[in-house]
Amino acid sequence: MNLFDMPLEELKNYKPDLTKESNFEEFWEKTIEESKDQPLDAKLNSVDYPVEQVRVYDVFFDGFKNSRIYGRYVLPKEASKDNKVPVIVMYHGYNWNNVVISNVLSFSLMGYGVLLVDVRGQDIKSPDHNNYDNGGAAGWMTKGILNPDNYYYRYVYMDCVRAVEFVSKREEIDSDKIAVEGGSQGGGLAIAAGALSDKVKAVMADIPYLCHFRRAVELYEGSPYSEIYHYFKLHDSLHQTEEQVYKTLSYFDGMNLAARIKADVLMSVGLEDTVCPPSTGFALYNHLDTNKEIKVYPEYGHGGFNQQGEEKIVFLKKRFG
Amino acid sequence: MNLFDMPLEELKNYKPDLTKESNFEEFWEKTIEESKDQPLDAKLNSVDYPVEQVRVYDVFFDGFKNSRIYGRYVLPKEASKDNKVPVIVMYHGYNWNNVVISNVLSFSLMGYGVLLVDVRGQDIKSPDHNNYDNGGAAGWMTKGILNPDNYYYRYVYMDCVRAVEFVSKREEIDSDKIAVEGGSQGGGLAIAAGALSDKVKAVMADIPYLCHFRRAVELYEGSPYSEIYHYFKLHDSLHQTEEQVYKTLSYFDGMNLAARIKADVLMSVGLEDTVCPPSTGFALYNHLDTNKEIKVYPEYGHGGFNQQGEEKIVFLKKRFG
Amino acid sequence: MNLFDMPLEELKNYKPDLTKESNFEEFWEKTIEESKDQPLDAKLNSVDYPVEQVRVYDVFFDGFKNSRIYGRYVLPKEASKDNKVPVIVMYHGYNWNNVVISNVLSFSLMGYGVLLVDVRGQDIKSPDHNNYDNGGAAGWMTKGILNPDNYYYRYVYMDCVRAVEFVSKREEIDSDKIAVEGGSQGGGLAIAAGALSDKVKAVMADIPYLCHFRRAVELYEGSPYSEIYHYFKLHDSLHQTEEQVYKTLSYFDGMNLAARIKADVLMSVGLEDTVCPPSTGFALYNHLDTNKEIKVYPEYGHGGFNQQGEEKIVFLKKRFG
Amino acid sequence: MNLFDMPLEELKNYKPDLTKESNFEEFWEKTIEESKDQPLDAKLNSVDYPVEQVRVYDVFFDGFKNSRIYGRYVLPKEASKDNKVPVIVMYHGYNWNNVVISNVLSFSLMGYGVLLVDVRGQDIKSPDHNNYDNGGAAGWMTKGILNPDNYYYRYVYMDCVRAVEFVSKREEIDSDKIAVEGGSQGGGLAIAAGALSDKVKAVMADIPYLCHFRRAVELYEGSPYSEIYHYFKLHDSLHQTEEQVYKTLSYFDGMNLAARIKADVLMSVGLEDTVCPPSTGFALYNHLDTNKEIKVYPEYGHGGFNQQGEEKIVFLKKRFG
Amino acid sequence: MNLFDMPLEELKNYKPDLTKESNFEEFWEKTIEESKDQPLDAKLNSVDYPVEQVRVYDVFFDGFKNSRIYGRYVLPKEASKDNKVPVIVMYHGYNWNNVVISNVLSFSLMGYGVLLVDVRGQDIKSPDHNNYDNGGAAGWMTKGILNPDNYYYRYVYMDCVRAVEFVSKREEIDSDKIAVEGGSQGGGLAIAAGALSDKVKAVMADIPYLCHFRRAVELYEGSPYSEIYHYFKLHDSLHQTEEQVYKTLSYFDGMNLAARIKADVLMSVGLEDTVCPPSTGFALYNHLDTNKEIKVYPEYGHGGFNQQGEEKIVFLKKRFG
Amino acid sequence: MNLFDMPLEELKNYKPDLTKESNFEEFWEKTIEESKDQPLDAKLNSVDYPVEQVRVYDVFFDGFKNSRIYGRYVLPKEASKDNKVPVIVMYHGYNWNNVVISNVLSFSLMGYGVLLVDVRGQDIKSPDHNNYDNGGAAGWMTKGILNPDNYYYRYVYMDCVRAVEFVSKREEIDSDKIAVEGGSQGGGLAIAAGALSDKVKAVMADIPYLCHFRRAVELYEGSPYSEIYHYFKLHDSLHQTEEQVYKTLSYFDGMNLAARIKADVLMSVGLEDTVCPPSTGFALYNHLDTNKEIKVYPEYGHGGFNQQGEEKIVFLKKRFG
Repeated sequence: MNLFDMPLEELKNYKPDLTKESNFEEFWEKTIEESKDQPLDAKLNSVDYPVEQVRVYDVFFDGFKNSRIYGRYVLPKEASKDNKVPVIVMYHGYNWNNVVISNVLSFSLMGYGVLLVDVRGQDIKSPDHNNYDNGGAAGWMTKGILNPDNYYYRYVYMDCVRAVEFVSKREEIDSDKIAVEGGSQGGGLAIAAGALSDKVKAVMADIPYLCHFRRAVELYEGSPYSEIYHYFKLHDSLHQTEEQVYKTLSYFDGMNLAARIKADVLMSVGLEDTVCPPSTGFALYNHLDTNKEIKVYPEYGHGGFNQQGEEKIVFLKKRFG
Repeated sequence: MNLFDMPLEELKNYKPDLTKESNFEEFWEKTIEESKDQPLDAKLNSVDYPVEQVRVYDVFFDGFKNSRIYGRYVLPKEASKDNKVPVIVMYHGYNWNNVVISNVLSFSLMGYGVLLVDVRGQDIKSPDHNNYDNGGAAGWMTKGILNPDNYYYRYVYMDCVRAVEFVSKREEIDSDKIAVEGGSQGGGLAIAAGALSDKVKAVMADIPYLCHFRRAVELYEGSPYSEIYHYFKLHDSLHQTEEQVYKTLSYFDGMNLAARIKADVLMSVGLEDTVCPPSTGFALYNHLDTNKEIKVYPEYGHGGFNQQGEEKIVFLKKRFG
Repeated sequence: MNLFDMPLEELKNYKPDLTKESNFEEFWEKTIEESKDQPLDAKLNSVDYPVEQVRVYDVFFDGFKNSRIYGRYVLPKEASKDNKVPVIVMYHGYNWNNVVISNVLSFSLMGYGVLLVDVRGQDIKSPDHNNYDNGGAAGWMTKGILNPDNYYYRYVYMDCVRAVEFVSKREEIDSDKIAVEGGSQGGGLAIAAGALSDKVKAVMADIPYLCHFRRAVELYEGSPYSEIYHYFKLHDSLHQTEEQVYKTLSYFDGMNLAARIKADVLMSVGLEDTVCPPSTGFALYNHLDTNKEIKVYPEYGHGGFNQQGEEKIVFLKKRFG
Repeated sequence: MNLFDMPLEELKNYKPDLTKESNFEEFWEKTIEESKDQPLDAKLNSVDYPVEQVRVYDVFFDGFKNSRIYGRYVLPKEASKDNKVPVIVMYHGYNWNNVVISNVLSFSLMGYGVLLVDVRGQDIKSPDHNNYDNGGAAGWMTKGILNPDNYYYRYVYMDCVRAVEFVSKREEIDSDKIAVEGGSQGGGLAIAAGALSDKVKAVMADIPYLCHFRRAVELYEGSPYSEIYHYFKLHDSLHQTEEQVYKTLSYFDGMNLAARIKADVLMSVGLEDTVCPPSTGFALYNHLDTNKEIKVYPEYGHGGFNQQGEEKIVFLKKRFG
Repeated sequence: MNLFDMPLEELKNYKPDLTKESNFEEFWEKTIEESKDQPLDAKLNSVDYPVEQVRVYDVFFDGFKNSRIYGRYVLPKEASKDNKVPVIVMYHGYNWNNVVISNVLSFSLMGYGVLLVDVRGQDIKSPDHNNYDNGGAAGWMTKGILNPDNYYYRYVYMDCVRAVEFVSKREEIDSDKIAVEGGSQGGGLAIAAGALSDKVKAVMADIPYLCHFRRAVELYEGSPYSEIYHYFKLHDSLHQTEEQVYKTLSYFDGMNLAARIKADVLMSVGLEDTVCPPSTGFALYNHLDTNKEIKVYPEYGHGGFNQQGEEKIVFLKKRFG
Repeated sequence: MNLFDMPLEELKNYKPDLTKESNFEEFWEKTIEESKDQPLDAKLNSVDYPVEQVRVYDVFFDGFKNSRIYGRYVLPKEASKDNKVPVIVMYHGYNWNNVVISNVLSFSLMGYGVLLVDVRGQDIKSPDHNNYDNGGAAGWMTKGILNPDNYYYRYVYMDCVRAVEFVSKREEIDSDKIAVEGGSQGGGLAIAAGALSDKVKAVMADIPYLCHFRRAVELYEGSPYSEIYHYFKLHDSLHQTEEQVYKTLSYFDGMNLAARIKADVLMSVGLEDTVCPPSTGFALYNHLDTNKEIKVYPEYGHGGFNQQGEEKIVFLKKRFG
């Protein structure tokens, strides 16, 4: 066992001070308003899929302020206006969208709609057409890092909220039964969507990325927290912008967003996770103020624990039947 | 890209000489007969599972000559004597059975029965009660290595055949639609079951283990081919038993078993697989004399390519509807 | 010594077939024309620097089609309309612009003007405002990878040409004495500028990136050729777009551009370079049809050989005095 | 120096709480009785060896409850009923019996008998014929892990005691001068034999394995403590059996056995030992309540310190002459 | 970020106890006297160099007590008796003299003389002809380790002082403007020269080696502190000479020498430096009792931070104009 | 298995061209003469040792031209003028003398005298007092690398011959029964002693160092062939002295010395030896023209195969009884 982070007993009580700026809530309320004013302009195209019990669609909708977001939408055949189904909106990992439909098919076959959302820039069909005035490190983590208003994840978080918006308006969806789900970046986005959309009723976040940034950058081994590290190394070796960088990130820190979540939350951490260290996950978890549950996998790192699939089935069944 | 093995163009034509002993076919025919004479004595216990569309059972049956084999059996709710369903018998990786029911649920929800078979010794509920007179390396690869009649995989291969036997006799199963599936060791076992049971109609073998042993031991990086290496290192450093060791293994080499397969085969290899090097997979594939298909994943090692899940759905749909 | 690539004797004669598409020359002629039609709109701001023998400026000019490119411009104090000086335009490494003025000061003190050009997107002050319709891998290598007309390096290459354009028009510069210089990506860009601008009279390219792409991706260990690998791994695991990807890259391959260069060339390779393997450097070098020289550093990888600094002084002195 | 464990000053005083269950002594007394009731049925076969000053034998005797244990027995030529000699019973490392007679020859030539005992299952000639109802991880560490009565090391520990029993009954052996020796697993077995047999008068245990299990699993890097880790990872990812696992192991923990030892003890630890971390060795050492000595090798890991050979000669000379 | 050493806030206040022996000052005063009594016997040979603004010389002078020391001496063309220039004496890294003249040319072109001094034994032209009676580890760190009077660095430190002596006597040098500079071993030597010669007016020491030896050996990863580790491992595995070894080293510890320095000091550390851990640099820095400045590079290890080149220009300009 | 070198079948026939200079034999004949003219001036001091069957001495004798060589001499108690015993002169590994008397005790107890010789410079008690005019890399490999007459190993080889000389003159030694032995550098020195002294009757050389230098430097991973690599990297990055370096080494290459050996030879190689690659050992072996035997350990690297201890006993018994 790798003792690079705290032991489990400490983790369970680890609740570091929040890093919210005074206008944190205002920042997000204003952002949510801006998004609400912007239409989705969603389009669906039916797609052939060899499993007759489901219907599959390509979905495109307008991202926050710019860019067109792509998703795959998988419905139980029987879903309809008169037979509304619960739905799971799923977000993917950083630079790592290798989800195929067969990965999520069991949920659709059990009766859930599933929307697989692409993250802007990180996918072939979802380019990011926003312009950033600073950044510099390969990847997306530092795009706009010196200004929260034009930081990359402000756009991505709102794209995620807009994906929830999209499903909530579908006639075949029971809009009281919307879950969000994801691992790593996807886990961070599920937390963000749960915090920024009141339509979300259940959050399943595995090994969440994008929380407790300072500690994460300190403990990280490898990508993608390393991009912040790289920004300093190459572009600010004496850390003259350090305060501004962490100020920007504070608006997007899952830990700071946690208290906004009203939905039930199921989380997981791996005690050997050197990408999203367990203390960053617990920092988030311990700031949640809602029905919550966390599964701890002592021998696992950044994912790989199949058992969590079983836990999610139980978690959803209890809530959405 | 790691150039530790041959380039793709060479792999496609790589067909090394077989290493069959003269009594190879006789050895297996006799073994198959011995197994046929031994009753299965199967028992099923119903198990609660939170998904109402399936029924789940614990299964126990007698392994080859000794030991009791455990499996999990997942049926579409509607399967019955009058509504027979196709079935997939699944085998797991070496020392790595982390399959949970939710991993295979989509197949049951699509209408297939699924039997997840444990490998003797490698699982909590399937101990190996056979006695071996030699071996020595931690693990199972060298148990009985000096004598094909009492080699570990003679028992395991026949356990796998007996698992097929079990499903073929179930009234809710359409015994003309039996598939076997697995990755790594599970892929090797799927090949073995396809070669040693005429009831198997479709074989899905990913990154198969247990083929082309000499080259595999030469190229291996890490477990489990390393156990053969370890046997020599610790117990026969001057290789006085080398000939006997490879003679024993020749009976269990997927390459030598390939020509026995009549079922359709879907295979996969990762070109960066250092555990089961791609040339060992192609050695097997190129000796297959049946309807066959291989998917090559250039950037992948020992698994991880989700796309193969899509390929399997298509492969099964075409054959079993 | 790491034998991951060819031995030196083979390298010296390694001249693989070019991969030029039939419209290769036309593609570039058209691109050059488009750039010529677009004004530079250059602005200079004087900057304080503690060395009185030089004058330092921030420079901004319009990039190809969009985006504003930033550079630092260091002149010998005595340079003027009446005392024109030779100039070196320098390009930096991929995601690795850690050049400070003191690194290049000796050239200015010797009497050369120096322009340090930022690469769009890779630097704080040179954002990339072009929109790409595909890509997906973190970094810049796959932005627009399916279409040479909108591929990232089409813009970067022309930005580099425009930097040469900028200095060529300065009254304090002797426009018959323009050199370009760089290592790694910077080496590739120096080659590109030498091939695409007839104003360049001397090229100094160390351990050049962006040449002989197929072999480079095969041999690479680590970033940034890995981004192409990552594109396939995540977004096209069965390589259905492989042909298009390498077709796009062929337009930007230093090997294909080599024959266009008329300027004298000084190159270097490290025989242990696993980032830009030596065979890719020699592939380029052996296709050069001009006065050329290559320095081979058998014990070095991707740079670090200080001796090349001495070689460059001699190379420039001979040509520009 | 690798600071993965405590500094030396802390190690010297590190005495963690014991983890004995209330019936610990009873468990072992009963086990010892069971073994005493079972005859050894020892057989010796003379073996040729090119050194005329010694006599070498193959020895076989009945292991605890089942399995036949093999050993090599090397006697000074002059040993006889009338010229009784002291004896050293030696145990080998986990999955690593590479001891040859020439390794121990100097002891026989100095006048000691030497018995090299194989560990059941880990050697060619000493198969383990016990049946275990659980386990699952490759190797022997988890065989029977849920039940101390049928745990692998219950059998092995008693096999080691029976090896002492065997030499104690030989007419050529001075049964008041029996030493046990070993490194790693062999060190743990020497401790166990010293604790469970009152015939042992001297214990030489290097870098002992099998002590302070919880800390060992926490700090381990690599095999074989990793097998316990692997058991959890694959077969109990949420640690539902953790309490039972460590309860079973508590019966076999050298730390808990230490107080039973009356023989003199010579130990060694390497401060860089990541296989059997030094704190686990000191935990054992500090619980010993007998004449004891420990040699600390600051720059060494899991063995390799030749100096300990010199220390053992002095230790034995002092006690056995 | 690698947390192998203390966090920055602790480092800033880290001031461990000095380890000076009672005769520390006397030891050095006597050594300095001995050196003063020994003539330099310096010889200069003019060398061709392609940059006309400088004059380059090979320099040879007598090392402390024996051996002939080689240096390269680079002067601004205009330096002369009547136009005295300031000078920088530069020392190189351990076993790593890859400095070429172009690396330091900018200083000469700005108007400084530069003397590049070779370290005895570590260079082709500066053999070490001293005889040592003990040592044993490959390298120089343990040569004479049991006796401060005949320890390798006593000779090297005084060679460095003698290099300062050499420039101070040159007619073209302004002997009130002598700086010393170096990184790693070179940084340690700059500190030593600053402490042992009152002619030094400015010290620029990057990532200094040779300070706080005990902690350095504890934390080291890799060469050259490893040579002390190796000495113990191979030649004194039970550490019987540990006290003497660290007593010898105490005379050469930059931390103990720090208080002797009257010159202004500019230092740097990399927080990820595992060769010369940052706590050893701060131990030295916090014991300096003069005008001092330290630059901290959080993302850097043992060097590579180009920004320090800018800092040095400013530091020198302020002091020497 | 690591395929970094040739497969076994190729190795068995690998006989590269020799690289002898025309005056190779003359060089050595002259050197041998020079040594013969120089007295040994040997001194012995009796040392206490706790094993009564042996007598132990410290030995000092004059090395070739300068330096005093230390050895440990272990005799069977009964050895005397009237009871002459055979003797084994043992050499140790590069920078790695961790041999203690108990390691070689069995040989003395079997009736052989043993002389453990220290290599000059590499040991505490055997300093090297020769002066070298070039070198530069930490370690001994490049000391005097540009001149065979003053190359380090010229002194070491002759020290080894002088150690043989010493034992040959002892009255308790049967001077017709002198063996030399060693592993790695010790193996190279055993070969050298066998080639340069006609008194040697048996050579036991394991995993020999110092042969087939060019290929060794090409294939090496890690020390000490790396010192030659380091010499080029730091001191001659463009390889201007390459020819001279390999010319110097040719005089000391075991491959070139092989044909001089008349004694019987027992060798060993590990097929995974990356320090002294197996092809370099076979290059030597295949050039031997005497009674010879080689043991191949396919799963071993640079040593560790205990079986070779058994082989040596047999080899010596056959020859010396």
